[in-house]
Amino acid sequence: MNAFLDQCRAIAGAAHVLDAPEDMAPLLRDWRGRFTGRALAVLRPGSVDEVAALVRACAAARVPMVPQGGNTGLVLGSVPDAAGTAVVISLVRLNTIRAVDAVNRTMTVDAGCILQHVQEAAAAQGCLFPLSLAAEGSCTIGGNLATNAGGTAVLRYGNTRELCLGLEVVTPSGELWSGLRGLRKDNTGYDLRDLYIGAEGTLGIITGAVLKLYPQPKASITALAALPSPAHALRLLSLMQDRAGASLTGFELMSAYCLALVAKHFPDLPRPFADAYPQYALLELSSTESAGHAVALLEEAIGAALEEGIVLDAVVASSVAQSEGLWRLREHIPLAQAADGKNIKHDISLPVSRIADYIAHTAPLLQQAFPGCQLVCFGHLGDGNLHFNVAPPAGTPNELFLANQAAVNRVVHDAVVAFGGSISAEHGIGALKRDELAHYKDPVELNLMRTIKAALDPLNLMNPGKIL
Amino acid sequence: MNAFLDQCRAIAGAAHVLDAPEDMAPLLRDWRGRFTGRALAVLRPGSVDEVAALVRACAAARVPMVPQGGNTGLVLGSVPDAAGTAVVISLVRLNTIRAVDAVNRTMTVDAGCILQHVQEAAAAQGCLFPLSLAAEGSCTIGGNLATNAGGTAVLRYGNTRELCLGLEVVTPSGELWSGLRGLRKDNTGYDLRDLYIGAEGTLGIITGAVLKLYPQPKASITALAALPSPAHALRLLSLMQDRAGASLTGFELMSAYCLALVAKHFPDLPRPFADAYPQYALLELSSTESAGHAVALLEEAIGAALEEGIVLDAVVASSVAQSEGLWRLREHIPLAQAADGKNIKHDISLPVSRIADYIAHTAPLLQQAFPGCQLVCFGHLGDGNLHFNVAPPAGTPNELFLANQAAVNRVVHDAVVAFGGSISAEHGIGALKRDELAHYKDPVELNLMRTIKAALDPLNLMNPGKIL
Repeated sequence: MNAFLDQCRAIAGAAHVLDAPEDMAPLLRDWRGRFTGRALAVLRPGSVDEVAALVRACAAARVPMVPQGGNTGLVLGSVPDAAGTAVVISLVRLNTIRAVDAVNRTMTVDAGCILQHVQEAAAAQGCLFPLSLAAEGSCTIGGNLATNAGGTAVLRYGNTRELCLGLEVVTPSGELWSGLRGLRKDNTGYDLRDLYIGAEGTLGIITGAVLKLYPQPKASITALAALPSPAHALRLLSLMQDRAGASLTGFELMSAYCLALVAKHFPDLPRPFADAYPQYALLELSSTESAGHAVALLEEAIGAALEEGIVLDAVVASSVAQSEGLWRLREHIPLAQAADGKNIKHDISLPVSRIADYIAHTAPLLQQAFPGCQLVCFGHLGDGNLHFNVAPPAGTPNELFLANQAAVNRVVHDAVVAFGGSISAEHGIGALKRDELAHYKDPVELNLMRTIKAALDPLNLMNPGKIL
Repeated sequence: MNAFLDQCRAIAGAAHVLDAPEDMAPLLRDWRGRFTGRALAVLRPGSVDEVAALVRACAAARVPMVPQGGNTGLVLGSVPDAAGTAVVISLVRLNTIRAVDAVNRTMTVDAGCILQHVQEAAAAQGCLFPLSLAAEGSCTIGGNLATNAGGTAVLRYGNTRELCLGLEVVTPSGELWSGLRGLRKDNTGYDLRDLYIGAEGTLGIITGAVLKLYPQPKASITALAALPSPAHALRLLSLMQDRAGASLTGFELMSAYCLALVAKHFPDLPRPFADAYPQYALLELSSTESAGHAVALLEEAIGAALEEGIVLDAVVASSVAQSEGLWRLREHIPLAQAADGKNIKHDISLPVSRIADYIAHTAPLLQQAFPGCQLVCFGHLGDGNLHFNVAPPAGTPNELFLANQAAVNRVVHDAVVAFGGSISAEHGIGALKRDELAHYKDPVELNLMRTIKAALDPLNLMNPGKIL
């Protein structure tokens, strides 16, 4: 192994082959601090050619590789296992915005670019790169692509997959595929791009990408609507889509319990309603015309929803600043949740039309199995994505309740599958949900995935033990 | 082979195993009438289970299979070769709309459904299925998916790939993958869906799909703008996108020569301008609010473009009926072209920002090589997709000029590749462009495709000789 590490030093420079435990530590620990792996070394290549040369060295020495971006993943996809035989290949030094083409509405970037820097580079050219999520200040675009990240703008702009036109990938044998095309239409063979996107680094290492940009909306305006039930939220979603089409850029569902948690832990935040209601929807309309256009369209739609009895009460922001205030309520749910103690988290998706039925079906099952448990149910309703978290009954210590994780997962995920949903909407599988995937996935589909993995990574060196 | 055909008859019924030459003929001839293949038989399964059973029978007997939908493809992808050893598996009897879910905005369909029927079923529920192309009255959605069809709505809604959430596929060994998920977010492993989409039936047979639906716009309004050059068309596109965002649903470029051809062969169509201009752009704005909103937005934007000197003259339709009249000019270009005689066709795409430079670079090269040749250049500018067709010089018989096909392709496609474009934007590769693909495609990418093909179809029985 010393010869192998010497070879890595010759490729990337001694300063970029870390093997001291204290240097490696932060890159071996997962974002939520639940697991720390071990590694032979952390490699920090400074160019695409160095990535390819390191991969060839790893392949020759049969050393497993764990590609890593900002290491902000939630499913143990970017940290090595406990064996200590793998290297981490960190992409963070590949952080150049290679080109912005405002007319083609594309940007070519290194995989290690921080998402926020990508957003800023787009904005500097009067364009929008719409991917937005909580970790945007430290996650990398390569990690976003490898996990097909979701976030808050999926309703209008799609997942990371839909925001990418071309990729550059180092294969498990260290060949470079230059697929950095900035084309809206290209029907010349198999869609390799989408195979690497979402593969969580198990088929190759993404080193660069061509991203899609959009016109920057003139303004985004939000409203908060109080609703009798999730079923009413679905009716409101349909009404908003019919009236606003692609101008509807956000539609989040929050239960009364969620906003009560926020009020408890962040008493300084605004409380838009004097009364409490069972459910709330946060809506966002964006206009390429003007803020006034967005406000008028939103007020008219909310007015119609009030008249039809879909909405019980509503606040429409009259400015961008007020809109940001309403978004803060939504953004503080995860923080309020954390302040309240650990709970059992799920990242599920469902056909949008089945969300109300899913909640109505599953909440009583949870009560039956874990009497008094609290449902922290919120999420991106417009995408069918719920964060369906289960907190302990009042008085039960959180750590004690966490022992029920497997049993709670079974109730939640059995119901998800019965309703045609997914056990991982936007976080991926990694090592954390691998057994859950094997439990639920159609064997034909699993077998197709294994066939592809074996064909493209015959030595099983690329992020082994993740997904499959 | 008799035993094999008997087995097929036992599966699909004798009436659906065609082996008389006159019965098979229309399914062996390509849409443009340039090639007629031979086959052992045409099989017409009536259910997904029958498709799977027929595929298993073919695999056991080592009989190559050519999946076929409406057989309207343009690249010889859905007809067998001349060997006569393959069977055609026609999906046209699988033509049931299985379900429409207006709240989830999805529709589950059999692969053999005619595109127009899919559009109509969506409209009946107040929704839009936006895929639209010339062959929509006879092409099938399975064929659209297999070829990742483009069409006129790509600018706003994307290619067929972007309009599909889930697939059902019979693998080359006759297993059934049921991936009919109607989810906007699902990160549970490799993206098999997008691997089958655009694979032109070489990896399996698509038997069903979950399609995305959209809110039906209240109105679509068009304008025709006269422009000094393609570069001005690009400036107009940017201006329109900044002002109208997702409301811009069409942006077509047409050269003066194209509209002159239309005027020559269809003298009864309207002529919007008294003068002739070098280039024209047909713009379409759609509004989920009202026709008035679309007209106002379009007039304002065109006004700004006139003021900035981007546009020389313009006609804005004041109604949906007038809008349809303007679209007819664009739709009649292929017909006028055909009436004028055969020419050498290309279906290329480029980064949108490079289109004007591409035309300025390539047109003189063609003139140099083929003095007096006429460029019939039109297409979906907003998607970077040009139909860059080359007609003979005045007085040269078309058939004679066609002998230059390979040399013309070389000029056009060499330049496409030099400008970062694609030699097949929306038609695919099939058998027609297979050699061209091998000539231009990066060997690493070709090798990755071959690896996937060999892994998923080890006997090379699924539409062999297409793409690779």
